[in-house]
Amino acid sequence: MSTHPFDHAIALQPLGGDRFAGATSPAYANMVGPFGGVSAATLLNAVMQHPQRLGDPVALTVNFAAAVADGAFEVLARPVRTNRSTQHWVVELHQGGEVSSTATVVTAVERETWAVQDHAMPDVPAPEAVPSPARRGMVEWVRRYDMRFIEGELPTEWDGSGSSSRTQVWIRDAQPRALDACSIASMADGFFPRVWLRRATMVPVGTVSMTVYFHAGAAEMASTGTGWLLGQAQAQVFRHGFADQQAQLWNEAGQLLATTHQIVYYKS
Amino acid sequence: MSTHPFDHAIALQPLGGDRFAGATSPAYANMVGPFGGVSAATLLNAVMQHPQRLGDPVALTVNFAAAVADGAFEVLARPVRTNRSTQHWVVELHQGGEVSSTATVVTAVERETWAVQDHAMPDVPAPEAVPSPARRGMVEWVRRYDMRFIEGELPTEWDGSGSSSRTQVWIRDAQPRALDACSIASMADGFFPRVWLRRATMVPVGTVSMTVYFHAGAAEMASTGTGWLLGQAQAQVFRHGFADQQAQLWNEAGQLLATTHQIVYYKS
Repeated sequence: MSTHPFDHAIALQPLGGDRFAGATSPAYANMVGPFGGVSAATLLNAVMQHPQRLGDPVALTVNFAAAVADGAFEVLARPVRTNRSTQHWVVELHQGGEVSSTATVVTAVERETWAVQDHAMPDVPAPEAVPSPARRGMVEWVRRYDMRFIEGELPTEWDGSGSSSRTQVWIRDAQPRALDACSIASMADGFFPRVWLRRATMVPVGTVSMTVYFHAGAAEMASTGTGWLLGQAQAQVFRHGFADQQAQLWNEAGQLLATTHQIVYYKS
Repeated sequence: MSTHPFDHAIALQPLGGDRFAGATSPAYANMVGPFGGVSAATLLNAVMQHPQRLGDPVALTVNFAAAVADGAFEVLARPVRTNRSTQHWVVELHQGGEVSSTATVVTAVERETWAVQDHAMPDVPAPEAVPSPARRGMVEWVRRYDMRFIEGELPTEWDGSGSSSRTQVWIRDAQPRALDACSIASMADGFFPRVWLRRATMVPVGTVSMTVYFHAGAAEMASTGTGWLLGQAQAQVFRHGFADQQAQLWNEAGQLLATTHQIVYYKS
């Protein structure tokens, strides 16, 4: 059994059939309840541990229907369609007799094909050349990651002066851990809300739905290992209380490992 | 009852509870089975017609688990969590005793908030100044749309010479129809596969998962009406037989009405 806090946080006990038991981890606490990235990774982990799984994750969508309360929960992961080389899953996180999160997952057997990467990693300083933020996170989960901001760190003055929603940040597990689909899913939610940056104003927020596309096969995962990922995130529009976010995660070699999107509720 | 072919194609008959009956429409046939955009719109329409619906669509994710066969199908739309102003749905399309597609939908009561749009519409010629394609679509659904390509039309020479995956296209229903969430969902899938453009090579393809974020409220929908949308689509990476696509839909006034993403299977 791994002693890494991330493995502990996403751990699930099989209850038979499609059911798994889990519990929130204080190490990844957010302001209220657990960090959404770890919830997403936990939902994905139910698929990863399911004995009927075929292949590896290609797409994950998580809908955060309600705040997950600290404590125990149950995950139901159903393979709703199994094809020759792809499989479709519907996943639900139940807590207190209600659905708190839903997810859909597509897995597929890895294949080698024609390939090209058109979105090159931005030209940024190496992670070792970027200082750690002077202040560490206000919430516990942020301490589980090492983050080096190149652009678009949290505002230091909350004065309504924001003009861009773009962040570029090197990120990796603070305690080294080899990259896998679950840690990609978690880091895909590791960008603080774009609306805070764009407005330099702290308003109540919450991710409503997040999608992750996995472009890393076994070879790209292995060569990334415990290395840094470069994350870039940006919003396109804020309207009617919801903002989008599009983001990318590259490894240090410049391979685009994941593309991800989310829609985030904001108040007023 | 509307006589528009799109309304006919997405029509559902309530079967009681969360169940609805539908059927594919020859007017929106694809090479095999129906156009995925209309399937997505039909899944969304089950939520739109559900008597328990709260608010309007904010996010839609559709997973295409298997080809939908021409003919009848049943849609099951379950409201799994209803909050004060948001609601979460899990939707399934059943055909022949199996799940062919799944979807999740988030709806929310429309609110006025601080707003800003950072992704401006590209500077392109007006739709009236862009000629119709010389050849019309090979498949039936393409004829249901008027498309004016500014950039990135289907290759005319399939010679492996491609260098960019970007398309810019004006699109609207060929027979005028006022824009709504269902037609946005359909047009979000209206871009031909990026891999065909990028490689100038026609390989077997299929959308596996598509997400649409809706940024248009009632006012933006109404002011768009039967007007043109500018669609822009581009891939970031093609690897291991899957390519992403990120896309935007603006109205003629330049309002970003929807952002959308999909992951597309391609062979070899």
